[in-house]
Amino acid sequence: MDSPNRADFLVGLKSGGKYDQIVGIYRHNTSADRIGVFDEEIIDALAETGTVKWIAHNGAGYDQIDVSRCANKGDFHILHLLGLSSMMFHGLTSDLGISVSNTPGAVDDATATTALYLVISCLRNYAWAEQSLRQGTFKSGLDPGRAHDVTGRTLGILGLGGIGLRLAHLVHAFPMRVVYYSRNKSANAPEWCEYIDSLEGLCRESDVLSLHVPLRNETVHLVGEKEIRTMKKGSIIVNTARGKVIDEEAMIRALEDGHLSSVGLDVYPNEPLVNPRLLEFPQNVLLPHMGTENQDSQRHMEVRALTNLRDFLRDGQGNDLIPELRSKL
Amino acid sequence: MDSPNRADFLVGLKSGGKYDQIVGIYRHNTSADRIGVFDEEIIDALAETGTVKWIAHNGAGYDQIDVSRCANKGDFHILHLLGLSSMMFHGLTSDLGISVSNTPGAVDDATATTALYLVISCLRNYAWAEQSLRQGTFKSGLDPGRAHDVTGRTLGILGLGGIGLRLAHLVHAFPMRVVYYSRNKSANAPEWCEYIDSLEGLCRESDVLSLHVPLRNETVHLVGEKEIRTMKKGSIIVNTARGKVIDEEAMIRALEDGHLSSVGLDVYPNEPLVNPRLLEFPQNVLLPHMGTENQDSQRHMEVRALTNLRDFLRDGQGNDLIPELRSKL
Repeated sequence: MDSPNRADFLVGLKSGGKYDQIVGIYRHNTSADRIGVFDEEIIDALAETGTVKWIAHNGAGYDQIDVSRCANKGDFHILHLLGLSSMMFHGLTSDLGISVSNTPGAVDDATATTALYLVISCLRNYAWAEQSLRQGTFKSGLDPGRAHDVTGRTLGILGLGGIGLRLAHLVHAFPMRVVYYSRNKSANAPEWCEYIDSLEGLCRESDVLSLHVPLRNETVHLVGEKEIRTMKKGSIIVNTARGKVIDEEAMIRALEDGHLSSVGLDVYPNEPLVNPRLLEFPQNVLLPHMGTENQDSQRHMEVRALTNLRDFLRDGQGNDLIPELRSKL
Repeated sequence: MDSPNRADFLVGLKSGGKYDQIVGIYRHNTSADRIGVFDEEIIDALAETGTVKWIAHNGAGYDQIDVSRCANKGDFHILHLLGLSSMMFHGLTSDLGISVSNTPGAVDDATATTALYLVISCLRNYAWAEQSLRQGTFKSGLDPGRAHDVTGRTLGILGLGGIGLRLAHLVHAFPMRVVYYSRNKSANAPEWCEYIDSLEGLCRESDVLSLHVPLRNETVHLVGEKEIRTMKKGSIIVNTARGKVIDEEAMIRALEDGHLSSVGLDVYPNEPLVNPRLLEFPQNVLLPHMGTENQDSQRHMEVRALTNLRDFLRDGQGNDLIPELRSKL
């Protein structure tokens, strides 16, 4: 994909264009820098090719792809047929729409390690300490009374998928007490991992709340004013999922009045922009979306995404089809 | 201890002074800010009181106390007796010299957690990433190709005492491969913890070398030019023990020519001074001696040190007598 911008990409997809006859796409979020996210316009253009049948996304989160539009492509093509558009022939072959795969397991270790780092740094005030040293003040101004051991604290995990479960195992080494809330009790949870049957209950129990839910319409601002105020005074929020899962304004208010002692963030609502008010708190640990940024995990993710694409090409079906599209098959 | 300086402290110890008749001392390293470390001069002054018999030090490392001088106090008093000094009476009661206890187990968890943090941050380039974000450049300029997953790397532990062993258990959660070198093979080491019978061999095997030996004459610059160059190109050194255990100049040269990819340090040869050349490497993780700086561990350490002192007062013998003095009993 050598398009410098969206217009060039869309032209390339048309009959006779440089992307004509493409049947599968390997997608990385970095493509959004040039052509934007895979929104309605791009999904529609891909569908109209009639040939593109598989998007092998590199990553666990696929909120940059309008998957509901992918799922609806069968119907969409029927509309085209009724309109006798030039896409008629292609439409006839696309009764299953466009499939989307992600790379769920491949990100678990690296992302959970990022969350573990944020948990440790927030509890122990290490980010603040590093800033103090590099500013030439060693540790004067730091207060050990603000810091806690990791061992013995309670970690609340919101969403016990692969990443949440991996984090549970990592912190169990200390051990931290681990509680979690998911829509359903997890069959994979070890017995020391306590299920709590409401988000409110999870917030009440947690010294540190770590978020591991995908970004969907129903998870936007899932952690808002009410949930934050349900947490204990002095507690911590860690987010390696997606920025919009938290109501950022409510979170910053809670930092300002001391209800939250710190937050450890790897994700933000409008990356790469970071709300400058977050930087006013030296105790906050702020990473620039480093969840899986290392050569080992990136290789695992690439291999997994490309394997999904190869399987589709060879067998007509790849693995890791995203849950929203599974019912279509 | 309310002395603003050493002279006041020494005067206070004299007969009729404000510290007269003191039999035991609870010592914290922060006292060095006012009266300096417990060097020959202070130990001699304590011995001359004839009443001080126990120093309950708060901390695992006791390199700020001249313990060989403490051990020799029995002989020292004999010399005083021969000289018919005014300390004669006191000297008669001090045949065992001055005992020193530390708080070994109480620091293990917090210090090993600090080492774990440095291991993670060095491998994943998180310190660099945090600086980049706070400077407003998000992650541009960072290279995932420089970063590695923690899982699967080899951690070399130099000194498998309480802290080293605790670190081994924490990183086993990933797992990292764990190898160690100590003067003797540890009876406490789990079977997945591989003993290597030389420091050179340990350096050769390690992706990350973490130091957990006390500072003694024989451990000064234990990791020097030769050991660093025996390590693989691109490897990492983590130090939560004492700054002087590493030859800092050799370490900085290895950072400059890229033989070491980064170092994670909590300790420095001349704290609170930090060699400014270390700050030139954004990938270095530099903490201002935060090993046990949190309210939970500091409470554990205080309780342990004060318990040792209480036991001495009540029973004539406290626990945690440092190894160098055990043969004296």
